[in-house]
Amino acid sequence: MTTSEKNKFIYDFTEGNKDLKNLLGGKGANLAEMTKLGLNIPPGFTITTEACLIYFREPEKVMKELEPSVMKNLKALEESSGKKFGDMKNPLLVSVRSGAPMSMPGMMDTVLNLGLNNQSVLGLAEQTENPRFAYDSYRRFIQMFGDVVMAIGAEKFERILTKYKRLIGRDAQDTDLKVTDLQKIIADYKALYEKEIGSAFPQDPLKQLFLAIDAVFKSWNNRRAITYRRINNIPNFGTAVNIQVMVFGNKGENSATGVVFTRDPSTGENKKFGEYLTNAQGEDVVAGIRTPKKLEVMEEEFPTIYTQLLDTMDRLEKHYRDMQDIEFTIEDGKLNILQTRNGKRTPSAAVKIAVDMVKEGLITKEEAIMSLDPNKVSKLLFKSIDESAIVHVLAHSINASPGAVSGIAIFDPDTAEELANQGENEIILCRPQTKPEDVHGLYASSGVLTQFGGKTSHAAVVARGMGKPAIVGASDIEIDEENKEFRVGEMVIHEGDYITIDGTTGKVIEGIVPLIEPEIKDEFLELLQIADEIKTLGVRANADTPLDALKALEFGAEGIGLCRTEHMFMAQDRLPTVQNMILARTKEVRQDALNKILPWQKQDFYEIFKIMEGRPVTIRLLDPPLHEFLPELSLVQLERQELKMTNALSKSLLNTSPLDEEIKKKNKVISLIRSLSEENPMMGLRGCRLGIVWPEINEMQVKAIFQAACELKLQGINVMPEVMIPLVGMLSELQYVKAQLMQVALETINEYDVELDYKFGTMIEIPRAALTADEIAIEAEFFSFGTNDLTQMTYGFSRDDAEGKFLPVYLNKEILEDNPFEILDQEGVGQLMKMAIKLGKKARPDLKTGICGEHGGEPSSIKFSHDIGLDYVSCSPFRIPVARIAAAQAVIENKKE
Amino acid sequence: MTTSEKNKFIYDFTEGNKDLKNLLGGKGANLAEMTKLGLNIPPGFTITTEACLIYFREPEKVMKELEPSVMKNLKALEESSGKKFGDMKNPLLVSVRSGAPMSMPGMMDTVLNLGLNNQSVLGLAEQTENPRFAYDSYRRFIQMFGDVVMAIGAEKFERILTKYKRLIGRDAQDTDLKVTDLQKIIADYKALYEKEIGSAFPQDPLKQLFLAIDAVFKSWNNRRAITYRRINNIPNFGTAVNIQVMVFGNKGENSATGVVFTRDPSTGENKKFGEYLTNAQGEDVVAGIRTPKKLEVMEEEFPTIYTQLLDTMDRLEKHYRDMQDIEFTIEDGKLNILQTRNGKRTPSAAVKIAVDMVKEGLITKEEAIMSLDPNKVSKLLFKSIDESAIVHVLAHSINASPGAVSGIAIFDPDTAEELANQGENEIILCRPQTKPEDVHGLYASSGVLTQFGGKTSHAAVVARGMGKPAIVGASDIEIDEENKEFRVGEMVIHEGDYITIDGTTGKVIEGIVPLIEPEIKDEFLELLQIADEIKTLGVRANADTPLDALKALEFGAEGIGLCRTEHMFMAQDRLPTVQNMILARTKEVRQDALNKILPWQKQDFYEIFKIMEGRPVTIRLLDPPLHEFLPELSLVQLERQELKMTNALSKSLLNTSPLDEEIKKKNKVISLIRSLSEENPMMGLRGCRLGIVWPEINEMQVKAIFQAACELKLQGINVMPEVMIPLVGMLSELQYVKAQLMQVALETINEYDVELDYKFGTMIEIPRAALTADEIAIEAEFFSFGTNDLTQMTYGFSRDDAEGKFLPVYLNKEILEDNPFEILDQEGVGQLMKMAIKLGKKARPDLKTGICGEHGGEPSSIKFSHDIGLDYVSCSPFRIPVARIAAAQAVIENKKE
Repeated sequence: MTTSEKNKFIYDFTEGNKDLKNLLGGKGANLAEMTKLGLNIPPGFTITTEACLIYFREPEKVMKELEPSVMKNLKALEESSGKKFGDMKNPLLVSVRSGAPMSMPGMMDTVLNLGLNNQSVLGLAEQTENPRFAYDSYRRFIQMFGDVVMAIGAEKFERILTKYKRLIGRDAQDTDLKVTDLQKIIADYKALYEKEIGSAFPQDPLKQLFLAIDAVFKSWNNRRAITYRRINNIPNFGTAVNIQVMVFGNKGENSATGVVFTRDPSTGENKKFGEYLTNAQGEDVVAGIRTPKKLEVMEEEFPTIYTQLLDTMDRLEKHYRDMQDIEFTIEDGKLNILQTRNGKRTPSAAVKIAVDMVKEGLITKEEAIMSLDPNKVSKLLFKSIDESAIVHVLAHSINASPGAVSGIAIFDPDTAEELANQGENEIILCRPQTKPEDVHGLYASSGVLTQFGGKTSHAAVVARGMGKPAIVGASDIEIDEENKEFRVGEMVIHEGDYITIDGTTGKVIEGIVPLIEPEIKDEFLELLQIADEIKTLGVRANADTPLDALKALEFGAEGIGLCRTEHMFMAQDRLPTVQNMILARTKEVRQDALNKILPWQKQDFYEIFKIMEGRPVTIRLLDPPLHEFLPELSLVQLERQELKMTNALSKSLLNTSPLDEEIKKKNKVISLIRSLSEENPMMGLRGCRLGIVWPEINEMQVKAIFQAACELKLQGINVMPEVMIPLVGMLSELQYVKAQLMQVALETINEYDVELDYKFGTMIEIPRAALTADEIAIEAEFFSFGTNDLTQMTYGFSRDDAEGKFLPVYLNKEILEDNPFEILDQEGVGQLMKMAIKLGKKARPDLKTGICGEHGGEPSSIKFSHDIGLDYVSCSPFRIPVARIAAAQAVIENKKE
Repeated sequence: MTTSEKNKFIYDFTEGNKDLKNLLGGKGANLAEMTKLGLNIPPGFTITTEACLIYFREPEKVMKELEPSVMKNLKALEESSGKKFGDMKNPLLVSVRSGAPMSMPGMMDTVLNLGLNNQSVLGLAEQTENPRFAYDSYRRFIQMFGDVVMAIGAEKFERILTKYKRLIGRDAQDTDLKVTDLQKIIADYKALYEKEIGSAFPQDPLKQLFLAIDAVFKSWNNRRAITYRRINNIPNFGTAVNIQVMVFGNKGENSATGVVFTRDPSTGENKKFGEYLTNAQGEDVVAGIRTPKKLEVMEEEFPTIYTQLLDTMDRLEKHYRDMQDIEFTIEDGKLNILQTRNGKRTPSAAVKIAVDMVKEGLITKEEAIMSLDPNKVSKLLFKSIDESAIVHVLAHSINASPGAVSGIAIFDPDTAEELANQGENEIILCRPQTKPEDVHGLYASSGVLTQFGGKTSHAAVVARGMGKPAIVGASDIEIDEENKEFRVGEMVIHEGDYITIDGTTGKVIEGIVPLIEPEIKDEFLELLQIADEIKTLGVRANADTPLDALKALEFGAEGIGLCRTEHMFMAQDRLPTVQNMILARTKEVRQDALNKILPWQKQDFYEIFKIMEGRPVTIRLLDPPLHEFLPELSLVQLERQELKMTNALSKSLLNTSPLDEEIKKKNKVISLIRSLSEENPMMGLRGCRLGIVWPEINEMQVKAIFQAACELKLQGINVMPEVMIPLVGMLSELQYVKAQLMQVALETINEYDVELDYKFGTMIEIPRAALTADEIAIEAEFFSFGTNDLTQMTYGFSRDDAEGKFLPVYLNKEILEDNPFEILDQEGVGQLMKMAIKLGKKARPDLKTGICGEHGGEPSSIKFSHDIGLDYVSCSPFRIPVARIAAAQAVIENKKE
């Protein structure tokens, strides 16, 4: 069986329809659809994507087998057009255009006027009685063919064209070129072609055609296209090739070409929008050679066609039920439609169009939701860099906290604070990395940039908590604290110099850059309302502070899925007490410190509970290794060194050693910090392990939670605390910790004598917990998947190290398709989650399950969470709108399946 | 239904047999068995372990329900003995002894002479016409009852006894005490009892009996017993209570008591062995009050009984088919047997007895194998501390590399090397921790002691590799490098002081301690031969050097399951080149260094392959993070500081800066070390990730492997290299690395033009690899479970940190039963292994599977490995005998099941 016996490689426009996108590509399917609709579409045919895919296995065979079918379909075009391909008198010219199932830049685009040669250009001139048009078309054809099909640089053709235009005058347009000019240009073009390719410009139209088809196929697998597909997760569909009878917008002043949108693509307003050029071919509009005219002008210039075009636009939008981006050409006063597709739009336009169309009854609510890209929607919530601005990007690093901000570079937290107190409110704190001691500097700044660390570093976590933009791990930048400057390549940024950081993309930019303010319009809220009607998955927020909780409510959180208590410990006024607690050598000293911390913690919880009234609040007990709260070892060593020197001086001058005691104290602190330091802190003494070794900390936290809850309950405010024990890997750990804490909880409730709804549960973030979830569920009333840590352990990747050291290489070498810390690894990590849910629900059918890792705000991971039956996702407040939309999409997609 | 309706709580000795051990305890079952055999056993009965277990739920109920049955059984004893319990004239006295199914110290042991009181002691004196015997018995009874049942400290009774002995004379024996002395002692004992307990010594024999039963039950759950069970993995069986008619060895010179072994328990020689005391009760032999007589003496003293005893010993050994430990009492010239049990023995005796008994046809080969504790057998291979020596233990820390050694404490590697060069061969290197720069010091020393680090620390790994004893993470010890001493508590050990370390137990001991040399006797080799006949699991060695490989062969390794190549990089003469390779900033410089390393690596492999001729050798490609090979950052910083100072001096004096270049170089090195340092190196850039980021290193290694293999093949020596790619978590990683390396391998084979058997496979040590093993197996020809890392990732435990910081707490609080790094966690880690095998074999039915983590040498984990169908285990050379025996035991146990 040969391929030709099996495959139909070519569809005439009259054969296809819009549902054959995968086979005919978007362009081909829509051309067929419009033909079916009876619009004025120049005839043509489409070579299928299937032919393209087989071409990559057996290129010669496919090209050979295509020949007879192409000839047959060309014949049909000749019949319908009354012209003949390669004819000297009445030549049929065609366009050759690629068309993949999904819009994809990087591939070969368009060749127009194919079929012209030295002979037929004469025939065309004679037949149209328009030699200028004929030579202009030939000139364009050679240029496009040379550039697009044969990969001779476009600039080489441009150089020739410009030379001749300059001969006419300084501001000469293409339209000023006369026939003789064009002939000279053609001669020069052909000479260029021969020089570059090594053979003359092909005169055989069939040869031209097959070279063009071959080039379209090949362009599917060029480097740029492959990269684009990888980044955008586009499968290897293959591309179709469309061959269509040419119509000419460059036949004179009664001809034109243009692009229209059925609604405004930048605002979404329901107002037709478009541009056109008279006496021009398609690429002229895009290339911006002349300033195009606005659609409104056409009403006067081509009144009949204007009405006709508006009518077509309405028809196509209704037919496709989406905003359309339409290409058209007017040839000798006749309107031809050359393409329609769903129009690209800004995020805010996307939202407005979707909501308007639901109101207009054009689309269903489900369709409105499906029309949105949740990731793009999230951009509406942050300041962003005006994409039209020309910027000097200094570095491209880890986007740790979203939003863009400009400010002066400041290299130490004290200066930042001082300047902020003086009223400076545009500060970017630049540090090698940040530590708890730097938090006042972070408060004083509008954004933070660090040289080291990853998305879970101190700077990243704190900045996200404060909702400030952050870029971390900028390894291209060398920060020199001493000299208060940073160096990147040859460039030096000094203290006080302006920079801009875009925490959404990870770009560090020189100077001040125009920013676009976020704006939440009514339509956006309406859309989220629609999403809520559809979705079944709960959406909670990760919120550590009352401010976070307010933000979360504003964005529609149904509860708090993760309240991290460690950030409460890091507040500048609390840290010294926390440090005393950690460095305590006796239980008594530790208890004293904890007694001081208790009322603070209680106040934190009190406010959060109050804000979240009636909604569940999941509080995670202290999780990080304690040395994260301690000052840097080298800092204390330095302090000791200074004390020692002062002491020595005092001894030699005054014969006293007044600082002996101080030095001894420092020695103790140093040895304690040393004893707490770990080889692999991520897998060390943290989470519930802390609670087992030092139960007093957890007990204080639980007391604070239940005191706060009981007091509110007494005031008639409904609270639903959920105590979450982190890093559990075995039932026995959970049993041990829970038993201790339940006692504290019950004692507190008894003291206040109130009824209180509460739960005790655990994070599932250790592979062993997932593997033994049936046991864990004996004690846990809820599971919250901590997919950040679960991903770390399942892959054996330390996120901080991986993202700085080898994940970029992995992505580049395509060993990983996505960063598993951003997009949940469904195969490995997801498998553990599925196991855990199955085992857990077997042991406890009413087990509540959620996800509180970063994946809880990522659309594909949210879909997965819905599919495996989680009760809720929890994500940072700013990701909640994304989550609501993605959760609704999951329901709709599953209905379809 | 009450418990009494359901349970038979008491068995007379005539009712039970040796197979009822779980119900009657070891002692009770054997007493019943011997009764059945017709030996002269004083009558008695046993309260079941079941009663004990129920007692812990319902103590009062059980004690109440026991009453009538105890009375009934006592009646039977009265009938058979012709005496009466509590009778004033002819009192029946009994012993009360605990007896669990497994031998277990820490529980209440024995009360003799129970039933005596102020009245019956008179009757006994009259009846036996031996007042001294009667009062001696009463004295003993009060003492034992007070100590054992009522927990009055034994020393308080001893003090009274000693006082009266002193009154007689300096060296007076118990036997020198007269009736009047004994009466005074009894009076003082009773006063002591009343003072301590608050009531008079109980006179009612039934009250005495039930108090004793209650105490036996309770002792099952005392702290010491619980701890013992936890450490020795003994289940919560409960204990039985044996109540037996007393016979008396203290009736005069025609009475005696003693213990005999059917073979020598310390050598295993087939020669009867025993000791006895005339005119004594059981505890006197154990207490060592008088020096007992040797068994041989009895031939003259009690000729008839001697023959009778020898005959009984033969009979019991044949019956139980094991060496017996027998207690007997001669009362008035009549032999009574009071206990028999399988005798405890030294490891070398165990081996000899097992092999001898097979030869004698007494037991089968299977029984011989099952009679051994593989863990104890391993002690035969190392120097150990003479257990009879009295030692001063300074600290008890992590036993990182087995064996004991004494030597002088030396605190820096250079001094160690210097002294070794001067002929000193007893050096213990004491360091806070070791780094690659210290390796020459390790070579020069006989053992190593570190303050920090765990079983996977540099010191531990290198010492194990060198077969030298090591103790690490000795956190109680503070090493002061500067002053060349260490401090532990109040004690200071200076440079040159002798210490002893026992790497098998983790004990650090002051001074020189007598050591027992290991000896491998023929019987041991015969036994291993038997194990090999039975076992089906392969046993390979973890061996990194030719020396290791020789050792491995000697112990019977069937191949090498893990050859770690990183240790080859650490050799002192190679390290500078390795560091150059790592610090190289360009590919060229790196390649230059690699070209220098290639011949070294090749030579390593060449020698190992040659030694292992015809056996598979699995070589793991470079695994650790590269910064492990670099000098400590602070060290380089110090060097830079010195350079800077010298430079400054030179500048101020001579106006030149000759060291500018050197300082710049140091700066570069510092910044490179910084850039390689990681937050969590265990989960950072290591394993196959290294091979992906820097393929040249792996390529060099594979070239070295195949060059060595091909050269040997050309010489007619058969080699079977297996290239193992570590830390794979995804198929794509393995694909990428393997494709590169296969090319190198094939090129090398083609160059040499030989046929070579080789395999490419992977470690399964990342949870994700186990979860996706069906994919991994597409590329992997073998799986080797790296259960060290797999345990780390599955639990989220960094071993170094966990063992230092919280695992001791976990074990102490019984959150963990065992250290999962020593005993494989079958539930979590084991589950992943089972999944991986199932998935892997589905994808590749002939997949070879093994284990090369430390668990590969641990008996219960070896059994598990056998059960889940692994092809082999791989362990350190010294564990190979253990593994061979454990593997054979697995086969036998499964047959039984």
